[in-house]
Amino acid sequence: MGATPPRSPLAPARFPDLPPVAGVTLATAAAGVRYAGRDDVLLARLDPGTAVAGVFTRSATRAAPVLDCEAKIGAESAAGAAILVNAGNANAFTGRHGAEAVARLTAAAGAALDLPGERVFTSSTGVIGELLPDDRIAAALDGLAGSLAPGGWEAAARAIGTTDTFPKGAGTTVELAGGPVRIAGIAKGSGMIAPDMATMLVYIFTDARLSRPALQEMVSELSDETFNRITVDGDTSTSDTLLAAATGASGVDAASDPAFRAALHGVMLDLAQQVVRDGEGATKFVEIAVTGAASAADARSHAFAIANSPLVKTAVAGEDPNWGRVVMAVGKSGAAADRDRLSIRFGDVRVAEAGWVAPDYDEADAAAHMHGQEIRIGVDLGLGAGAATVWTCDLTHGYIDINADYRS
Amino acid sequence: MGATPPRSPLAPARFPDLPPVAGVTLATAAAGVRYAGRDDVLLARLDPGTAVAGVFTRSATRAAPVLDCEAKIGAESAAGAAILVNAGNANAFTGRHGAEAVARLTAAAGAALDLPGERVFTSSTGVIGELLPDDRIAAALDGLAGSLAPGGWEAAARAIGTTDTFPKGAGTTVELAGGPVRIAGIAKGSGMIAPDMATMLVYIFTDARLSRPALQEMVSELSDETFNRITVDGDTSTSDTLLAAATGASGVDAASDPAFRAALHGVMLDLAQQVVRDGEGATKFVEIAVTGAASAADARSHAFAIANSPLVKTAVAGEDPNWGRVVMAVGKSGAAADRDRLSIRFGDVRVAEAGWVAPDYDEADAAAHMHGQEIRIGVDLGLGAGAATVWTCDLTHGYIDINADYRS
Repeated sequence: MGATPPRSPLAPARFPDLPPVAGVTLATAAAGVRYAGRDDVLLARLDPGTAVAGVFTRSATRAAPVLDCEAKIGAESAAGAAILVNAGNANAFTGRHGAEAVARLTAAAGAALDLPGERVFTSSTGVIGELLPDDRIAAALDGLAGSLAPGGWEAAARAIGTTDTFPKGAGTTVELAGGPVRIAGIAKGSGMIAPDMATMLVYIFTDARLSRPALQEMVSELSDETFNRITVDGDTSTSDTLLAAATGASGVDAASDPAFRAALHGVMLDLAQQVVRDGEGATKFVEIAVTGAASAADARSHAFAIANSPLVKTAVAGEDPNWGRVVMAVGKSGAAADRDRLSIRFGDVRVAEAGWVAPDYDEADAAAHMHGQEIRIGVDLGLGAGAATVWTCDLTHGYIDINADYRS
Repeated sequence: MGATPPRSPLAPARFPDLPPVAGVTLATAAAGVRYAGRDDVLLARLDPGTAVAGVFTRSATRAAPVLDCEAKIGAESAAGAAILVNAGNANAFTGRHGAEAVARLTAAAGAALDLPGERVFTSSTGVIGELLPDDRIAAALDGLAGSLAPGGWEAAARAIGTTDTFPKGAGTTVELAGGPVRIAGIAKGSGMIAPDMATMLVYIFTDARLSRPALQEMVSELSDETFNRITVDGDTSTSDTLLAAATGASGVDAASDPAFRAALHGVMLDLAQQVVRDGEGATKFVEIAVTGAASAADARSHAFAIANSPLVKTAVAGEDPNWGRVVMAVGKSGAAADRDRLSIRFGDVRVAEAGWVAPDYDEADAAAHMHGQEIRIGVDLGLGAGAATVWTCDLTHGYIDINADYRS
């Protein structure tokens, strides 16, 4: 790694105040996996009775910890569970050594916590193709187990970061019919962020009571509306993992309460957007809202064609209301479009309609919107009721600096 | 437009010596479409009996001249033909005004050349969404018609360029069974270059004799092996057009001579690779050769996933033999892959095999290859006989400069 990039200009002012979640304790440590002088391992202990659900990358070259999580996630167990995460090494493309390292780590963590290894879920993020020094992580396990405590979300978020420039957390306390429940989540991610997968690393905890299948269904659905709607560079990680844990410690049933689903959606969307706000080199946060498409799938295709277009992303970086590039991206997406029904907005400024520039368009208005930090691009296809919104960032010299000028 | 970017470091030393093609005359002029102080219009006159074939962008927002060419290209005619090209304005996303401008121009060019308007093919390249000042082009037509002459390929290639930093031409004289025939072609293209379409503007001329259907079949097939195998930024133009004209003036039949097909393939591949060598901001020419895939389609998906990955392209820019990013791109492509059968080469250096780093890998060897200007990345899937090779360039600060810092 070269010099650390500066904190993103799109970062929130501070890490949010997140409530402890009954049934969850956390600890972090500096195991020296790759980085010096910072914590790089997180251990989360989940009480017996906790339901654990997950969503994972569909990459064909996914990492050993992902394969191990996938094999375990569907099992029912009352034994409690643990999540062990390291930063600095992805344990990806490491052949059989990768799986062996995961087996050693889950066994060691299980021994330290008096859990079966099948109840230990691991994630690794960082360099691809180098052997994970799992012995260094194992050596830290007794200390981690001994320092587990409620709360500590910000330290946890910091311990799992790699090129992240700020720690990402979101949470809420929501009143359900049966009483209040708490949700807290953390995430890491900055580059190699792409849609259509559970992107990056995300851990969400609640003391609500849900069955494992109900929790799984909910996070799968909501991932598709949140983490699967963001992109930084269209490149998909080998390690993307979302784990959600419902301890049930509140005693409040949440499975059928729409307020819980709405609150969980809000937390997941907040975390997803924080990942975009920490996109490598980002200086603008961009919302692409497509309406009027022939179908929801078409709307999504158009939205991602725009969001992943290097020419659109560089135009945003240059504060250029270049709607010609938006037209180009719609045209290449492969989804249905009729040039002469297309309309385009930058912010609230209608720049193009019915296949050409809007009659009252004044570029100064659109340029004023582009000078801001929060950019909204609206595209209406004029064909049907399909709609989709995705979030991305601009493409700047900072992205090149991080990925070309610095050796990673 | 801002400052002109410097000539690409990957440019050929000079424009090639191209033979005149009997039955083809050319003229260029400065019509002031957008640029000052340079020719921006090309007129090509094709003698009676010429067969004209074309391949066009599949963009859903394709420009008015493309729609007009598509409507005309299939017709048989002995009347001769003309090609009229302007740079500086794409006449794209200009509503009914766009089609009206094309109709006026083809009628005016037909009148100047004593041809029916249906035999005039036009292309426009440049800014999207602004009205084409077709009156300025029409005003230049009599002068163009009066100065038509054989040869003049370099001036023709210069007249159709936009952000191109060098004029692109290729050609050959090939001995067929019936005697020698000549092929000469020119192209423009630098950004908004993506696969799976006939990319950018390309005009190829030969004095060989072929029927229109035979010529069409040949250029369609060969486009798929040449222009449809390159990418600069994954963004697809609204104006991509390839027109091929066979005048038959040599009297030599070429339809069934494999030497002609091979020569035409060579000319088209040369032009396609020149477009990549003029990729916006490019400092490295990159060949991605995928072998051992389950099918040819899978090989192509893997190759383009690698070629379009911003993380791979920035790694190449940074001269970093970062094979982990190649693994990532293979994993996200959607095509079949088995991590543990994958092998990767940079140049002749085997860096990874059987799902992990090669036992004798020495990074210094791979780094030495990455310091060069011609980069070869080889990926073998170990699954089948599917193979595909594509060409791209790196992603550098120069691309950001051209597309963000300069207003286009």
